[in-house]
Amino acid sequence: MSHNSFGHLFRVTTFGESHGPAIGCVVDGCPPRIPLTEADIQRDLDRRRPGQSRYTTQRQEPDQVRILSGVFTDEKTGVQMTTGTPIGLLIENVDQRSKDYGDIKNKYRPGHADYTYDVKYGIRDYRGGGRASARETAMRVAAGAIARKIVPGLVVRGALVQMGPHKIDRSRWDWEEVGRNPFFCPDAEAAAFFADYLDGIRKKGSSIGAVIEIVAEGVPPGLGAPVYGKLDSDLAAALMSINAVKGVEIGAGFEAAALTGEENADEMRLGNDGKPLFLSNHAGGIVGGISTGQAVIARFAVKPTSSILQPRLSVDRFGGETEVMTRGRHDPCVGIRAVPVGEAMVACVIADHYLRHRGQVGETTPWPMQD
Amino acid sequence: MSHNSFGHLFRVTTFGESHGPAIGCVVDGCPPRIPLTEADIQRDLDRRRPGQSRYTTQRQEPDQVRILSGVFTDEKTGVQMTTGTPIGLLIENVDQRSKDYGDIKNKYRPGHADYTYDVKYGIRDYRGGGRASARETAMRVAAGAIARKIVPGLVVRGALVQMGPHKIDRSRWDWEEVGRNPFFCPDAEAAAFFADYLDGIRKKGSSIGAVIEIVAEGVPPGLGAPVYGKLDSDLAAALMSINAVKGVEIGAGFEAAALTGEENADEMRLGNDGKPLFLSNHAGGIVGGISTGQAVIARFAVKPTSSILQPRLSVDRFGGETEVMTRGRHDPCVGIRAVPVGEAMVACVIADHYLRHRGQVGETTPWPMQD
Amino acid sequence: MSHNSFGHLFRVTTFGESHGPAIGCVVDGCPPRIPLTEADIQRDLDRRRPGQSRYTTQRQEPDQVRILSGVFTDEKTGVQMTTGTPIGLLIENVDQRSKDYGDIKNKYRPGHADYTYDVKYGIRDYRGGGRASARETAMRVAAGAIARKIVPGLVVRGALVQMGPHKIDRSRWDWEEVGRNPFFCPDAEAAAFFADYLDGIRKKGSSIGAVIEIVAEGVPPGLGAPVYGKLDSDLAAALMSINAVKGVEIGAGFEAAALTGEENADEMRLGNDGKPLFLSNHAGGIVGGISTGQAVIARFAVKPTSSILQPRLSVDRFGGETEVMTRGRHDPCVGIRAVPVGEAMVACVIADHYLRHRGQVGETTPWPMQD
Amino acid sequence: MSHNSFGHLFRVTTFGESHGPAIGCVVDGCPPRIPLTEADIQRDLDRRRPGQSRYTTQRQEPDQVRILSGVFTDEKTGVQMTTGTPIGLLIENVDQRSKDYGDIKNKYRPGHADYTYDVKYGIRDYRGGGRASARETAMRVAAGAIARKIVPGLVVRGALVQMGPHKIDRSRWDWEEVGRNPFFCPDAEAAAFFADYLDGIRKKGSSIGAVIEIVAEGVPPGLGAPVYGKLDSDLAAALMSINAVKGVEIGAGFEAAALTGEENADEMRLGNDGKPLFLSNHAGGIVGGISTGQAVIARFAVKPTSSILQPRLSVDRFGGETEVMTRGRHDPCVGIRAVPVGEAMVACVIADHYLRHRGQVGETTPWPMQD
Repeated sequence: MSHNSFGHLFRVTTFGESHGPAIGCVVDGCPPRIPLTEADIQRDLDRRRPGQSRYTTQRQEPDQVRILSGVFTDEKTGVQMTTGTPIGLLIENVDQRSKDYGDIKNKYRPGHADYTYDVKYGIRDYRGGGRASARETAMRVAAGAIARKIVPGLVVRGALVQMGPHKIDRSRWDWEEVGRNPFFCPDAEAAAFFADYLDGIRKKGSSIGAVIEIVAEGVPPGLGAPVYGKLDSDLAAALMSINAVKGVEIGAGFEAAALTGEENADEMRLGNDGKPLFLSNHAGGIVGGISTGQAVIARFAVKPTSSILQPRLSVDRFGGETEVMTRGRHDPCVGIRAVPVGEAMVACVIADHYLRHRGQVGETTPWPMQD
Repeated sequence: MSHNSFGHLFRVTTFGESHGPAIGCVVDGCPPRIPLTEADIQRDLDRRRPGQSRYTTQRQEPDQVRILSGVFTDEKTGVQMTTGTPIGLLIENVDQRSKDYGDIKNKYRPGHADYTYDVKYGIRDYRGGGRASARETAMRVAAGAIARKIVPGLVVRGALVQMGPHKIDRSRWDWEEVGRNPFFCPDAEAAAFFADYLDGIRKKGSSIGAVIEIVAEGVPPGLGAPVYGKLDSDLAAALMSINAVKGVEIGAGFEAAALTGEENADEMRLGNDGKPLFLSNHAGGIVGGISTGQAVIARFAVKPTSSILQPRLSVDRFGGETEVMTRGRHDPCVGIRAVPVGEAMVACVIADHYLRHRGQVGETTPWPMQD
Repeated sequence: MSHNSFGHLFRVTTFGESHGPAIGCVVDGCPPRIPLTEADIQRDLDRRRPGQSRYTTQRQEPDQVRILSGVFTDEKTGVQMTTGTPIGLLIENVDQRSKDYGDIKNKYRPGHADYTYDVKYGIRDYRGGGRASARETAMRVAAGAIARKIVPGLVVRGALVQMGPHKIDRSRWDWEEVGRNPFFCPDAEAAAFFADYLDGIRKKGSSIGAVIEIVAEGVPPGLGAPVYGKLDSDLAAALMSINAVKGVEIGAGFEAAALTGEENADEMRLGNDGKPLFLSNHAGGIVGGISTGQAVIARFAVKPTSSILQPRLSVDRFGGETEVMTRGRHDPCVGIRAVPVGEAMVACVIADHYLRHRGQVGETTPWPMQD
Repeated sequence: MSHNSFGHLFRVTTFGESHGPAIGCVVDGCPPRIPLTEADIQRDLDRRRPGQSRYTTQRQEPDQVRILSGVFTDEKTGVQMTTGTPIGLLIENVDQRSKDYGDIKNKYRPGHADYTYDVKYGIRDYRGGGRASARETAMRVAAGAIARKIVPGLVVRGALVQMGPHKIDRSRWDWEEVGRNPFFCPDAEAAAFFADYLDGIRKKGSSIGAVIEIVAEGVPPGLGAPVYGKLDSDLAAALMSINAVKGVEIGAGFEAAALTGEENADEMRLGNDGKPLFLSNHAGGIVGGISTGQAVIARFAVKPTSSILQPRLSVDRFGGETEVMTRGRHDPCVGIRAVPVGEAMVACVIADHYLRHRGQVGETTPWPMQD
């Protein structure tokens, strides 16, 4: 990954600050002749958009995306399709509320990137977090909407599986439920609990962390480029690059440390389609850095929002000690809106590896071997 | 990351299979005029070498590294130094025990990369795991030994902090202890317990997972290239690329999900040196993808060795169902030898970001600002 | 270079088609705290803009650039400066003259990228050349304007030194003259000749090629990353990527093939500043892929515009034979407008290598050695 | 291109100095199941090997290549094939004639990379040119031998077409002749002339430049990744990275500058196979950065060897003025041995683009369109 780009053949580059004129993105390397409209992208953006419930920041951004290049409408069919050239995307920033940034202009908010941007660059756009704002993730979601269309049969879905110390009950997992509550939670009972719980957090001016799980189904076996371009290695980088993420795991993840070899082994049988059928999925769909054909499962931990309504000890940019408190509109649990972002990152990584695999090996699968 | 390379300015490329004639590595982009001998590298390799206790594989490999290029001895000083050209490293494979691979040649061992390499490439070197063998990690350690010399004052150390479900007692943490037991364990009591515990695992022909913690001290503030080349994002990729790793976390990691914003905030004061002094380190030394100057702390989970002496259901490469059992020499807990490997990967990532930061911003730090 | 990006630490990504809504560019990796305004970029864009004389296409494009991100105005000084985050640039396409593309929609114009885009992608935006249009080069010029500000003391200038078979008289070279004629020609007499000559070409509906020379002064010695990231190698790639370029040479270039070793050697003395003084510059400022400190000199050949008012044999996209003729606004000598584009590419490559060198080696020069 | 690597999906990394223990190379991203033996590579290496006639350096290097990884022998067929993992190649340096380097250790030979390596790195391996030696090109040839096997039907051949000011007569071009004379010259009469001519140069202790032409037949249409990953842009970089190359051109090259649009246009008809048949090839097989399906034609200029037996003014590494003369074994015309090197670089670039195209677009060609 270079500074503001990721991916190799399917390559995403983003730019833009929270309170600048616009944020944008270039998606390069997309295969040609894939139907693509702004509505395809908008659908995903709308899932991430803030201000849709009282549990997310009240910043109102229509987040209306424009496709500036890389598509063309075939006259005969009237279908707009990708052309194989770079797809430029732009979202104007329309809710740049003018305000007094006096307090955070020179003071570093603990947990925010204020100090680190200053100590690195010696200058930063402090308005709304600048480049470090979660607003940047809108472009990840936009790129992900394109990525989803590349791998035939790929379905990438995400869910919030833990808020604060409270985990969902996985036996109640229902993908349909995810769209029915403001938390992307697959467990209806947990969602009801989270509503009250997060209200309490919010009213205290506090914030709380979360764990998100992304499940990618329809991933062809064979994706991944060992040993440093492993599929799980790229997923870890992609998810860890999301704002506020502090941990990533694949399949059994950290729990695998507590398992024995017998428990952890995913035994194999043959399915009716003649393909391997795994009797479990501790591997999370990836072995040796290469997809097995099972669902790829990744989880990531999101820290609590650093913006809280309680004063905290800090220093300022001139080397003095101070206190700082964050006012303004913020998510009490940024993990919620990280769900569509995580989905997008996983989709982008899989699309990239799909193209890379096709490049190196071609379109046919060598398995099973002829004996 | 491309297939078998990682890093941008400090770039490591490895090659070689477990039972081929040799494994090797090219370290490109190393700064010139850094004293470097084979002994510098050998020291780290010896820490990773198998066969040093009954807790690691009995494969005997002297792992004698040769530097083939990229160094030159200054006549006046007699000191061998890097020249800025690529450093070629080679280790001959000398213990390629001839054996009958009949059982695993065509059968896929659950948890091993047997099936995935076959379904991807249609061919694989099954001897000793081929490219997917942990033997490859010797070259990571070699590259890491070079990386350690690049950032002035950098100290990267690792420790095993959990084996199976058993965590160490962090209040007993003693870095000196790490070198005294065969587990790289900083807690002497836990180490004693692990000796018995792992003996039991080994005698049952079973295996067990582990969690490793890497601590990098002396990391200058300002390293990291947001938003996709974040320091933590690159660390996650680097650690997840190690064989058998299923999870990576930074600082508080997954526990951050359970914290409130107040608890998670690392408050700041000024130290006697005029630099920020953090009152805690939930961030693990990285905020917004950029190092804060605190210790960088990363942990990773290693799954139990897949090679176990118990038959498991599987399929073969011709599409038939079968059972498979792994014989031969193996680590009952591969997490142990992952400690120096994890250190090496962290050192490489930090060295790379050190050079990248110096490239973009230069050698002086802008902080604190003049008011 | 990936598809639509170039550079490593100073990395430029462009997007956009000739007749789409906009073209744009992301400049990533720019050092922070460099003063930068839209006017800085506009100045260079205006030099490239079409429609300024009868010798370039009459397409009227104000080419008004907007900086969308990556800059911030320091309140105290009021100076807008780069922040180290990606700089997004956008130019709206305002003169998308609606017209009937019937003739070229399905027919391939010889010398144009019509056939090759179709045979590669199976779809293309044929309006105004789409992605293959020289319009894309506006973003190169914009990125170059930023690059020029990175290396202290760097001056990159270009000149047209040959039109058709007619070379300028180098003894009359006057940099001041370059700005006085519409050909960027440093030889006033040649410029007068070219005016008549090109009128003749234009009136015949024909077109003609040209040779451009770029001279970069103030290039520090030591830039270049042998052996595949050589400075001249990257310059060759950068210049060859400009539309219609068919050849690139450094220093003596193809004439070096006819020289003996004695003739070609650039002998060295010491200048008054204690630095090497070269008695000639056949090397074009680069030896072994590394800059010597002399002026870097590159030349490139531009083929005649393929759009001519004469029917040519061709085929169509359905596999039939046909004839095709290009109507519309075109440059009789695209080489003219390639001058600022070539300057920009050279500036970008040098800026990138400046940062890469600083990354690997640091800011101090080791020469001369202490004995 | 990074420092010592080139290519994207087919990626070559080399290391090694002229007089170190060995030179080597890692070829990463090669497709699996391609038959490959050391003999396949040795064949090409032998064409480049020095000491085969009095016209090349008398350094005797058997240049015996070893494949260290990335291949495996299928038991049933007994055929050694690539596995898709990185291919490590090694050549031991056996003729490191011990000698007194006193003269060049501290003095800079004009035209050599002595000064530039010192001013960049502050240290250099001066023995035999170190990393800047043409010896490194052996690994390019080795990598090229692998690249040749990737694209079905690809044939890449090279020829010396000019020595000093003397061009061959293209009407006498005979590919068979190339293998019959020590100059890789396709014109028997010119070859006879060159024998005498070069004897004269050699006896005077002088040297001379040359121009090489590479012709790649069987290049599928559609290869190239506009606009910065153009096929010609990557060819230019690859050829310019060869030691002593000062110019690169594609198709008509610099002569295109003197042509009109009518002359330069490659008109198209349909061939009997239903594919486009071009009536000329001024484009050199590449339009808009994408291959047309015609032969890809590239030429490059090689400067005269800088090592000559005549004293030249110079400076030393301590900042003093001096004279320097090169003794020892050298090629009077390094252009000769650049022929197989140029072939190899072209083969590598085409193989890389073949895989990249397959990655983005897949294996089927969309042309001609259905109407």
